[in-house]
Amino acid sequence: MKEFFAQATKQHYMQLTAQEIANILKGKIEGDPNSIITAPSKIDETYPKTITFYANAKFEDYLYETKAAAIIVADDFVPKKKISATLIRVPDVYVAIAFLFEQFSQKKKKYSISPHTVIDEAADLAENVGVDHFSVIEKGAKIGNNTTIATNVFIGEGVIIGDNVTIYSGVKIYPSTSIGNNCIIHSNVVIGSDGFGFAPQEDGRYKKIHQLGSVRIEDDVEIGSNTTIDRGTMGPTIIRKGVKLDNLIQIAHNVEVGENTVIAAQSGIAGSAKLGKNIRIGGQVAIVGHVTIADGTQFQGKTGVGSSITQPNTSWWGVPAIPYMKYIRGYFKFQELPTMDRRLRKLEEKMENGQQKSDK
Amino acid sequence: MKEFFAQATKQHYMQLTAQEIANILKGKIEGDPNSIITAPSKIDETYPKTITFYANAKFEDYLYETKAAAIIVADDFVPKKKISATLIRVPDVYVAIAFLFEQFSQKKKKYSISPHTVIDEAADLAENVGVDHFSVIEKGAKIGNNTTIATNVFIGEGVIIGDNVTIYSGVKIYPSTSIGNNCIIHSNVVIGSDGFGFAPQEDGRYKKIHQLGSVRIEDDVEIGSNTTIDRGTMGPTIIRKGVKLDNLIQIAHNVEVGENTVIAAQSGIAGSAKLGKNIRIGGQVAIVGHVTIADGTQFQGKTGVGSSITQPNTSWWGVPAIPYMKYIRGYFKFQELPTMDRRLRKLEEKMENGQQKSDK
Amino acid sequence: MKEFFAQATKQHYMQLTAQEIANILKGKIEGDPNSIITAPSKIDETYPKTITFYANAKFEDYLYETKAAAIIVADDFVPKKKISATLIRVPDVYVAIAFLFEQFSQKKKKYSISPHTVIDEAADLAENVGVDHFSVIEKGAKIGNNTTIATNVFIGEGVIIGDNVTIYSGVKIYPSTSIGNNCIIHSNVVIGSDGFGFAPQEDGRYKKIHQLGSVRIEDDVEIGSNTTIDRGTMGPTIIRKGVKLDNLIQIAHNVEVGENTVIAAQSGIAGSAKLGKNIRIGGQVAIVGHVTIADGTQFQGKTGVGSSITQPNTSWWGVPAIPYMKYIRGYFKFQELPTMDRRLRKLEEKMENGQQKSDK
Repeated sequence: MKEFFAQATKQHYMQLTAQEIANILKGKIEGDPNSIITAPSKIDETYPKTITFYANAKFEDYLYETKAAAIIVADDFVPKKKISATLIRVPDVYVAIAFLFEQFSQKKKKYSISPHTVIDEAADLAENVGVDHFSVIEKGAKIGNNTTIATNVFIGEGVIIGDNVTIYSGVKIYPSTSIGNNCIIHSNVVIGSDGFGFAPQEDGRYKKIHQLGSVRIEDDVEIGSNTTIDRGTMGPTIIRKGVKLDNLIQIAHNVEVGENTVIAAQSGIAGSAKLGKNIRIGGQVAIVGHVTIADGTQFQGKTGVGSSITQPNTSWWGVPAIPYMKYIRGYFKFQELPTMDRRLRKLEEKMENGQQKSDK
Repeated sequence: MKEFFAQATKQHYMQLTAQEIANILKGKIEGDPNSIITAPSKIDETYPKTITFYANAKFEDYLYETKAAAIIVADDFVPKKKISATLIRVPDVYVAIAFLFEQFSQKKKKYSISPHTVIDEAADLAENVGVDHFSVIEKGAKIGNNTTIATNVFIGEGVIIGDNVTIYSGVKIYPSTSIGNNCIIHSNVVIGSDGFGFAPQEDGRYKKIHQLGSVRIEDDVEIGSNTTIDRGTMGPTIIRKGVKLDNLIQIAHNVEVGENTVIAAQSGIAGSAKLGKNIRIGGQVAIVGHVTIADGTQFQGKTGVGSSITQPNTSWWGVPAIPYMKYIRGYFKFQELPTMDRRLRKLEEKMENGQQKSDK
Repeated sequence: MKEFFAQATKQHYMQLTAQEIANILKGKIEGDPNSIITAPSKIDETYPKTITFYANAKFEDYLYETKAAAIIVADDFVPKKKISATLIRVPDVYVAIAFLFEQFSQKKKKYSISPHTVIDEAADLAENVGVDHFSVIEKGAKIGNNTTIATNVFIGEGVIIGDNVTIYSGVKIYPSTSIGNNCIIHSNVVIGSDGFGFAPQEDGRYKKIHQLGSVRIEDDVEIGSNTTIDRGTMGPTIIRKGVKLDNLIQIAHNVEVGENTVIAAQSGIAGSAKLGKNIRIGGQVAIVGHVTIADGTQFQGKTGVGSSITQPNTSWWGVPAIPYMKYIRGYFKFQELPTMDRRLRKLEEKMENGQQKSDK
């Protein structure tokens, strides 16, 4: 962490006062508004001239011994002892962190076009587009303002990409994909590869069903490293506004993922599944094809979803998925099964003995 | 879908008559053989001058109101009302779709060699080979006729690739791999990386076991994006003819996958497992190392296979895998476990009471 | 295998005597020390002039009919019949194999820098560094002695890489990552991409939490193809000395993986989990965020770990993880649940009848 601090002060170097940060976060100051802040720090490992945050009661003791210059706390926080640092009170500490870190994140975008690229003359690049070394943009592609494309990227024919998009190194985008504004696509993601469709033939061989559709990604979507999104069979595979996909996720052909749905790493959504809005999916979840999932559904990690869910805002676990609490209760007893079996045997014996007695 | 249609008519533009399509599909025409077809459409969202298909009884009502010019139906289909579109009757609708979509899929292959590539002089490229920008082919590699290699691909020393193979952007093929004819390998697939082999040493460290083998992929294999296939320890890892692998699959060292076996996304086959022919594996299945799986076995998604399966054509589910129906029945009762426990307790109490009574 | 042999003798051609190999392995010779060895072979498929090994009792019969010139066996092995081949006795056959295969593995490293690369002037390359075609090294990066970087690799700003590291084609390393000595990183691995951190906002949208941390990988780490390791939120994500990661693994932000821990393919470790030393994790395991896992823990494939494990050297299975034997016993009875239910029903009926009788 010392390292990080050194790094932070060197690489992300900037200097703000507590008051300036409070203004950015629309928070209220308690203490010295002129404290100097140069970097964020962790609550359990603070340094001078840093700002930390308090969001979890188990870390409260650290507050009273902090070396940080300022601490972000909740509006309703009541300290038990005196705190030396300046407090900045906000309604939601996590949202405040998101805005704070944005300040300290200075990823300089390269808005230049490397000479070591191949960009078709019939591609259309807007203002301030960056294209880094060894990337290829095919004809008919359109790239929006302030969008950056890193090294070794492939942008296929007719791909449309919006404004302020960041495409990291090694991303491969097949022809006819469209991507909205403000999207972030991490390294080695593949978008628009063929859906997995084959017609079984009488002799056991499979005949490829060519995938004629495309992929449509709306605004404000973030996609993690090595995730794959297949093109639709006829229409588009759709990722709606605000969706966040973690690493190594599989989105099959014809899937639709609804607005602001969040999916953790290594989950897979099979063909033609339609997911609603504001769904939260844990890691390594699998959702079977052709189902519909209601808004606000939550899946615990490793769930296997085998059928549609129509009631919104419910929680699920298990393979196949059953209501969350039902799984917890079943699994609790699952561990006692050998005991239950012995109890059952004992009863059977008693019953047998009882009957023999009464038979006498 | 409107979009798709526009796109389809623009990008995949072609024009065929119903009769011409019937000829391609070896189907029988009912209605106007001269209807003009320019694109396929979905049964529940048809457009004029398109051809759709009917394969699922729940969509029957759409048939009688279709805007499509033609519909592919099964030989034995009996309409309940008059259908305005031309019918094309075929024995298997899905196989017909596969052939139909092939017509509308016009992926123009680039059979040119970009100057922005590094191809070793001692590599051997046959006729009509395409190699796109920023790809590398090392010495001793052999590439067959009409094979295309997209951008940012690596073909290692001594790799042999057959005819009519399509290798998409970002694929990495380690030395000594061999690939048959008519294969399709999607973006960012890795073939031939080291198998995961280490000898534990007394001090807890692991000593790498160098992987001296290779990967052999036979004809007609399709491999989805970001899938990884490791080289064998001594002999080859083998993917037999007609195998179809979805995205993000792991095939470990020394595995053999039998002919026409199909594996869905995110499944993993551990080292030295031998899979038979015509196996169907759902998504996120894991198969443990060193087992043998009989021909025609089916694994439900998320199954964990812990031992060999010797009887062909059986179905499995669960972790570890048990017969499919056994898992279904067990899981059904699993959900009732708290109730079963209460019933058991009640019996125990009754028995206790009964005994106390009879003890009196 | 014949093929492999031909290949082996051609490509990995070398010639050693049994005595020379015994010297390398510090083993004891029994039989002709001058036998010529040109390649290793499998115990169940041997060839003249090869060396094989015997480590699994089920292959014993092959020993007495082997065509191999030499066999590696354990110190305490007692043959039942005469063996024609020269024996080389060692304390641990697998460790011996690891050293033997190292001899036969002659991956020639390319210590040249391709002109088709972009290496920033402010990058610092030590002696004997190789950088292959279409790779990019940004400013402030430091590359150690004898390290090779293959084709289409991206090394971001300020990345530090040690000595004798092998980075295969297509690896993407984000800025500020550090990698120790003797590491091997396979194709299309992504290191340092943003952790999956978002603050939910009142309107259902998610605000990105910028990830200011980094990734630190220590010495002797091997990372399999298409694995992803995210940067920390503030401090580093840490992979300790001697860790071995298989393919398609997800390591989330702020995770720490302890020394000599081994993780099989497609497993995922969620944010801020701290794993101890010498842990062994099967394939497709998921570990939830913010937990601590004791040294020497073992997880069976497909386990879902939901809470911390404090006692070292224990084994676990199930979702959520329970002690290994408890899971086995529970799952055994799970399969009998329908029968247990019937037995319970029968008892209930008997009890009911008994009571009715006694009520009469």
